[in-house]
Amino acid sequence: MDALTELTADETAAYAEVDAKARAAKATAHRLATVGAGIKNAALFAMADALDKKRREILDANSRDVGNAQGNGVAPHMVDRLLLNDKRIDAMRDGLAQVAALPDPVGDVVGGWRRPNGLQINKVRVPLGVIGIIYESRPNVTVDAAALCLKSGNACILRGGKEAIYSNIALTQTLAHAVESVGIPAGAISLIETTDRAAARRLMTLNKYVDCLIPRGGASLIETVVKTATVPVIETGTGNCHIYIDKDADMTLAERIVVNAKTSRPSVCNAAETLLIHSQAAPALTVVGLLQNLQERGVEIRGCERTVRLVDELKGAYRSLIPVTPATEDDFYNEFNDMILAVKILDSLEEAVAHINEYGSRHSEAIVSRSYASAQKFTDEVDAAVVYVNASTRFTDGYEFGFGAEIGISNQKLHARGPMGLEEMTTIKYVVRGTGQVR
Amino acid sequence: MDALTELTADETAAYAEVDAKARAAKATAHRLATVGAGIKNAALFAMADALDKKRREILDANSRDVGNAQGNGVAPHMVDRLLLNDKRIDAMRDGLAQVAALPDPVGDVVGGWRRPNGLQINKVRVPLGVIGIIYESRPNVTVDAAALCLKSGNACILRGGKEAIYSNIALTQTLAHAVESVGIPAGAISLIETTDRAAARRLMTLNKYVDCLIPRGGASLIETVVKTATVPVIETGTGNCHIYIDKDADMTLAERIVVNAKTSRPSVCNAAETLLIHSQAAPALTVVGLLQNLQERGVEIRGCERTVRLVDELKGAYRSLIPVTPATEDDFYNEFNDMILAVKILDSLEEAVAHINEYGSRHSEAIVSRSYASAQKFTDEVDAAVVYVNASTRFTDGYEFGFGAEIGISNQKLHARGPMGLEEMTTIKYVVRGTGQVR
Repeated sequence: MDALTELTADETAAYAEVDAKARAAKATAHRLATVGAGIKNAALFAMADALDKKRREILDANSRDVGNAQGNGVAPHMVDRLLLNDKRIDAMRDGLAQVAALPDPVGDVVGGWRRPNGLQINKVRVPLGVIGIIYESRPNVTVDAAALCLKSGNACILRGGKEAIYSNIALTQTLAHAVESVGIPAGAISLIETTDRAAARRLMTLNKYVDCLIPRGGASLIETVVKTATVPVIETGTGNCHIYIDKDADMTLAERIVVNAKTSRPSVCNAAETLLIHSQAAPALTVVGLLQNLQERGVEIRGCERTVRLVDELKGAYRSLIPVTPATEDDFYNEFNDMILAVKILDSLEEAVAHINEYGSRHSEAIVSRSYASAQKFTDEVDAAVVYVNASTRFTDGYEFGFGAEIGISNQKLHARGPMGLEEMTTIKYVVRGTGQVR
Repeated sequence: MDALTELTADETAAYAEVDAKARAAKATAHRLATVGAGIKNAALFAMADALDKKRREILDANSRDVGNAQGNGVAPHMVDRLLLNDKRIDAMRDGLAQVAALPDPVGDVVGGWRRPNGLQINKVRVPLGVIGIIYESRPNVTVDAAALCLKSGNACILRGGKEAIYSNIALTQTLAHAVESVGIPAGAISLIETTDRAAARRLMTLNKYVDCLIPRGGASLIETVVKTATVPVIETGTGNCHIYIDKDADMTLAERIVVNAKTSRPSVCNAAETLLIHSQAAPALTVVGLLQNLQERGVEIRGCERTVRLVDELKGAYRSLIPVTPATEDDFYNEFNDMILAVKILDSLEEAVAHINEYGSRHSEAIVSRSYASAQKFTDEVDAAVVYVNASTRFTDGYEFGFGAEIGISNQKLHARGPMGLEEMTTIKYVVRGTGQVR
């Protein structure tokens, strides 16, 4: 008996919803591909207006989600992610206007040439088509993703976390009506309303209609999408980032960078998770001073054997120095997303590069060095989306890179690597003009 | 009980081989990334030399494969794909020299800018890392793929069809020794020798070591890879290509293009599979004349109702006109890869675009038209990797595009679309140089 005939009623309903919305999205995508920037911007401003006007309904829907979450005993910091208020709606509204102000990448001719047989080849930027966004509980992702997809000429199918379902329904209805008001079919923005997992599974395997999936969320969400999807996925996220302090480094600069990369926002993917220190980076006292500074800011240090010993030897020198927890092998693979830093002392740049290429997640890696040769070797040999010399890893971000927007930070090598702005949400099409050429 | 503990002995062995080779490939890839073009070219010439010198061993191994295939009753045209001879070895050898002559894309700075805070961002082309190539029975793919991977700085893991296993072992041993002779680790080129399917499955899910998979072969191979792989896949292949003859088209030019696109090499992905004809393209007699020309060249026409009727009505006009088989819905979705052409008469360019966007495989689509507006509309609205005006779809090819090489034709939208040359086998890395910037 065919597995497909054994669908439960819930699965059948979920599939039907996803299929219908994906088909509509595809039809819309073909029309959206040739819509000019003027109309897309008008849609974005209409979306901003609509958010303002439907503020009451959106906040009511959100209260329902928040009430349910609290009733279900969801942790307060998770409830906070879910929560909307006037300020957050203002931010979403303003974000829409900012996206409208960005240049439209669609239609850019990124290359072109003429062949000896007279064929004229143009390589033109076009939208991907239908983008599926799978995310967790933050309702602002709904608005953000819809805006970036629309501006880049893509239809989007949104699948948010079930905790935010009422907020997301209210938001997408508001946005879809707004885009319709400027003549763009409502299929441009749709939300999968069935919270059953079957719906997400279906979305991830509808290769005929969905051109690409972008999961936004924690490691387990991304892993599930990568494992389940047959639709191509742009993997985002995991950042096990390192700061390597080279031999004879400028320790003032090193300390500033490490403190920033670890403590300015420890929960994000571009925060540092491991500090690698050349054994001749600086006098032992200076190195331990840096660790103590981190400890004073609330960072737990998990050190390699040499780090543990060093701190132990010098604990008399600093009143408040706390003994260091020995790091496990797992600690070096881990993205803590927390005020924890693994520390390893090693004897060469080569060891540092090898460590990063083995333990890192190919996201953002930094060297602090005065040496031209070290900087060159590090940037050449470290395999990561972004490699820094004498700067914090925290700059891996679409806004910091100057893209004016960010749909995520790609952690893979195909299609897009590093911060993804509007350009990364497009593909190319070759337009070949001839005069009857045959082969 | 964990599924992993239930591996058979064969599976365990297959996994062990794949894991060891993938790990070695990854280690090599990190070194290959910074190897200059001079050494890579020396390796390619050494590979060409080695093929020449080991010709006897390679042909002997190939005879064994061919003998086995014949013994197993493999069809003669499949045996021909498998067969090596002096001429084919010469072609592989010459192909290596051609790849050496191509420019090295690695290290190209594809963009760069300075941020207001002084950070200097460079976007640099780097190899993907480890590329897994999964293919069928042609042993020349082994040499071709190894050469393109090496030139683009990637380590490759090859998994060919089991019919060609002895040929592939002989070829990869020859190539791996050759690259070693110029100081590149042999791990740069490896072949999965276990022909068990478990080995392929393992390769497709080793995300830690394999950066990308490129399947090369028929639709079912590609579908299996897309369904099984968690490693990102560049889908190649399926081409259900259309030629649309617009209203008032130049029928001489149309006929030349249709004949070329359908008959010059019907088994390839850029051959035409469906002909769409505007009902006012030309007088009925001219249209039927085109169909008769195709029939005389051995093309079976499967027509829509109107086509069937037209041919029926005009059969008196052409002696040799054969009645047309009615096309099924499936015929329009099908990639025949054979001397069969589906034909549909329709009443507008809009219908043609809608047909192509529904039935096509987004590969190569052509319009034959004298109308500026039709050409613009067709190239804007058809969703495909390559869209042609007044030229044959057969030009969708890395060599014809001027890339000097081709690893495949991407049929998907992420990363690469259309013919893929060396550039498409790379990714980018952002190198960010600072002076102590923090955020």
